[in-house]
Amino acid sequence: MAETAVAENGSGGDANVVRVDLGTRGYDIRIGRGLLASAGAEIAAVLPGARLAVVADETVARLHLKAFSQSLTAAGLDHRAITVPAGESTKCFREFERLCDEILAARLERGDAVVALGGGVVGDLTGFAASAVRRGMAFIQVPTTLLAQVDSSVGGKTGINSRHGKNLIGAFHQPVLVLADTAVLDTLAPRDFRSGYAEVAKYGLLGDAEFFAWLEDNWQAVFAGGPERDEAVARSCQAKAEVVAADELESGRRALLNLGHTFGHALEAAVSYETERLVHGEGVAIGMMLAHEFSERLGLTGEDTVLRVRRHLTDVGLPVRVRDIPGQLPPAETFLDIIAQDKKVSRGALTFILTRGIGEAFVEKGVDPALVADFLKEKLEA
Amino acid sequence: MAETAVAENGSGGDANVVRVDLGTRGYDIRIGRGLLASAGAEIAAVLPGARLAVVADETVARLHLKAFSQSLTAAGLDHRAITVPAGESTKCFREFERLCDEILAARLERGDAVVALGGGVVGDLTGFAASAVRRGMAFIQVPTTLLAQVDSSVGGKTGINSRHGKNLIGAFHQPVLVLADTAVLDTLAPRDFRSGYAEVAKYGLLGDAEFFAWLEDNWQAVFAGGPERDEAVARSCQAKAEVVAADELESGRRALLNLGHTFGHALEAAVSYETERLVHGEGVAIGMMLAHEFSERLGLTGEDTVLRVRRHLTDVGLPVRVRDIPGQLPPAETFLDIIAQDKKVSRGALTFILTRGIGEAFVEKGVDPALVADFLKEKLEA
Ligand SMILES: NC(=O)c1ccc[n+]([C@@H]2O[C@H](COP(=O)([O-])OP(=O)(O)OC[C@H]3O[C@@H](n4cnc5c(N)ncnc54)[C@H](O)[C@@H]3O)[C@@H](O)[C@H]2O)c1
Ligand SMILES: NC(=O)c1ccc[n+]([C@@H]2O[C@H](COP(=O)([O-])OP(=O)(O)OC[C@H]3O[C@@H](n4cnc5c(N)ncnc54)[C@H](O)[C@@H]3O)[C@@H](O)[C@H]2O)c1
Ligand SMILES: [Zn+2]
Ligand SMILES: [Zn+2]
Repeated sequence: MAETAVAENGSGGDANVVRVDLGTRGYDIRIGRGLLASAGAEIAAVLPGARLAVVADETVARLHLKAFSQSLTAAGLDHRAITVPAGESTKCFREFERLCDEILAARLERGDAVVALGGGVVGDLTGFAASAVRRGMAFIQVPTTLLAQVDSSVGGKTGINSRHGKNLIGAFHQPVLVLADTAVLDTLAPRDFRSGYAEVAKYGLLGDAEFFAWLEDNWQAVFAGGPERDEAVARSCQAKAEVVAADELESGRRALLNLGHTFGHALEAAVSYETERLVHGEGVAIGMMLAHEFSERLGLTGEDTVLRVRRHLTDVGLPVRVRDIPGQLPPAETFLDIIAQDKKVSRGALTFILTRGIGEAFVEKGVDPALVADFLKEKLEA
Repeated sequence: MAETAVAENGSGGDANVVRVDLGTRGYDIRIGRGLLASAGAEIAAVLPGARLAVVADETVARLHLKAFSQSLTAAGLDHRAITVPAGESTKCFREFERLCDEILAARLERGDAVVALGGGVVGDLTGFAASAVRRGMAFIQVPTTLLAQVDSSVGGKTGINSRHGKNLIGAFHQPVLVLADTAVLDTLAPRDFRSGYAEVAKYGLLGDAEFFAWLEDNWQAVFAGGPERDEAVARSCQAKAEVVAADELESGRRALLNLGHTFGHALEAAVSYETERLVHGEGVAIGMMLAHEFSERLGLTGEDTVLRVRRHLTDVGLPVRVRDIPGQLPPAETFLDIIAQDKKVSRGALTFILTRGIGEAFVEKGVDPALVADFLKEKLEA
């Protein structure tokens, strides 16, 4: 479905290109170190003469907007910057309204585009606004966090949070182009980089044992920013693009991408999304550990699998145990309530992503809640 | 593409059925007098066991919610009513947020649906909320105004207004079923009925001379509520459904539906959308007259065409001249500014729907603004 190719990009440098194959809505993800400098040319090649509204949060605007803007100007692209506050709370109705208003004030026409320059927060909010303004403006993602480059910018899910929960309001809106400059990750806080890395490891664990083994050997270069980083981003995008192309509207296979996320989300909710205690990728790391341990408990895989996963996540500095989370945690019953509520959409049945080994995750519907309860109790008391 | 068929409906009565042919997203529009009483059975046939959030404005809730709710209960459909204020100002971000919240609070799951019971305001707002909650809930339209039955409930356009203009924020979100009970129109204010009728006449004028001739002969029965009303609604839905199926995302043919609307919108804007002075269908009626007169001026059609259109619109009680609008109007230059701004989306070129005769409208790109200016000046001074 999706294919990775090393291709010459228009502006001279080498870029990895992952094609997301969605028929007439298909698009390229271009990945490369320093791509921001040629972003204008890349965009002009897809949308010649477009006027752009560029959305960034204050942190990213301070660090990278100037370079991006210069590259647009050099390519003759008229544009206007719109800044939003940094942080998850920006994914709200109020900022959605303000952003829609600002995009309209920029007087974009058909053929123009809205650009998200930032992490998953800016990508999700901006994508939803782009989907809604004039019932759908062209949308470009320029992801600046590792999480956004390997996960949130691929697949077309956009949205905001409601007081009933995260990401409950939104749209499927595919971008026309994704530009991932792996050099901008150099300014990312180490904790944010590690958090995004949990999703990279996830792609190996859910379906590609060879990739996981490659990460075990090469993770230091990925963190340091060598060509291995580009390769890790490209292989991750390819993995997600394949699942997305096979199952755009998330009915079946796409669920595999939730490996580690049921437990992870419950942990995030249990600390009331206080990011000082737990960021998303840390929850995913612990959640993936729990998924592997639970799979071992069910006799689906061996202890060797669990040990390999634990070693690798520990090596890169990610937490692997519930007790790695600072402060008090609620009792196991509360976790089960959170999970049951999270799963409410599937009429009460508990669905988990389990595994038969590295790279062999699968969707298991109808897991016995009592088994989960016992398992969680033990883990919380450990 | 779309076809009208007289079919037995599940609950015994006769209903006209118009199929909107959009592949896997196709759906039926069922039209009939007293359909509200069998709405529960109709919905249960499409979404067995669904739980429903039913959205209505306060006026419609007072008049028709009880009957609708009883029909749902009789069919065993669990549901919850959500009320919004009546009026155009309900199509705003604040009500959008509140409605999304209420739909989430109703804890609908996959397989459940959001129902719009009301006019175009409730349909547009509710459809947008249905598109956004969980990135897309199933949506059912139960239109209760003539305008909603023949126009806004067909085609999947949903949305709200922004301070930059009407309907600028929204989504394409097709319903899974449309139920048009023509008896509920009996409680509609005569002015609202007439306003919706302008859109019915539009379908004849834009592409179906035979339908227009039929309306000239049968409009009194349409207003009185006989089987002719059902037929007029069905033929209108069919006309719109055909255009929509041919051109779902509004690139070409769908523009024909804007006959009378460029001038009409300018008139609505010129009175600041004060509905005491002008409601939408009245603006459309005057706008259609202007489109025919302008076409005559350009030598595209004869005076006989203009006279027939004027006579029919006058017969049913719709305004046909700019001076029929009570109060002062701005000068011609202001209208041109409004039109130019309205057309901004197509890079300055003025596109109009013109006609070669009854039922022979076409899209004309690149109309000379100077000709429009002269024409408008004359009409405003007439
Ligand atoms: N749409 C999807 O499919 C999808 C998938 C996964 C996650 N998400 C969403 O993504 C969001 C999390 O994304 P995130 O982790 O990127 O968070 P984020 O966008 O908040 O970015 C994290 C922090 O890094 C800063 N930052 C961004 N780029 C930087 C850079 N290059 N240098 C320095 N600082 C930088 C930001 O200002 C922010 O403070 C969540 O809201 C989550 O729901 C969406
Ligand atoms: N989505 C589309 O394709 C589309 C097309 C055309 C118009 N529209 C939109 O439709 C809206 C106008 O729709 P409308 O004219 O139906 O307005 P509306 O929904 O405001 O209804 C008009 C009035 O009639 C009342 N009402 C509704 N049904 C009634 C009934 N059966 N008996 C008595 N009173 C009743 C309402 O409470 C309201 O006060 C506008 O916002 C316009 O933008 C959308
Ligand atoms: Zn994640
Ligand atoms: Zn209209």
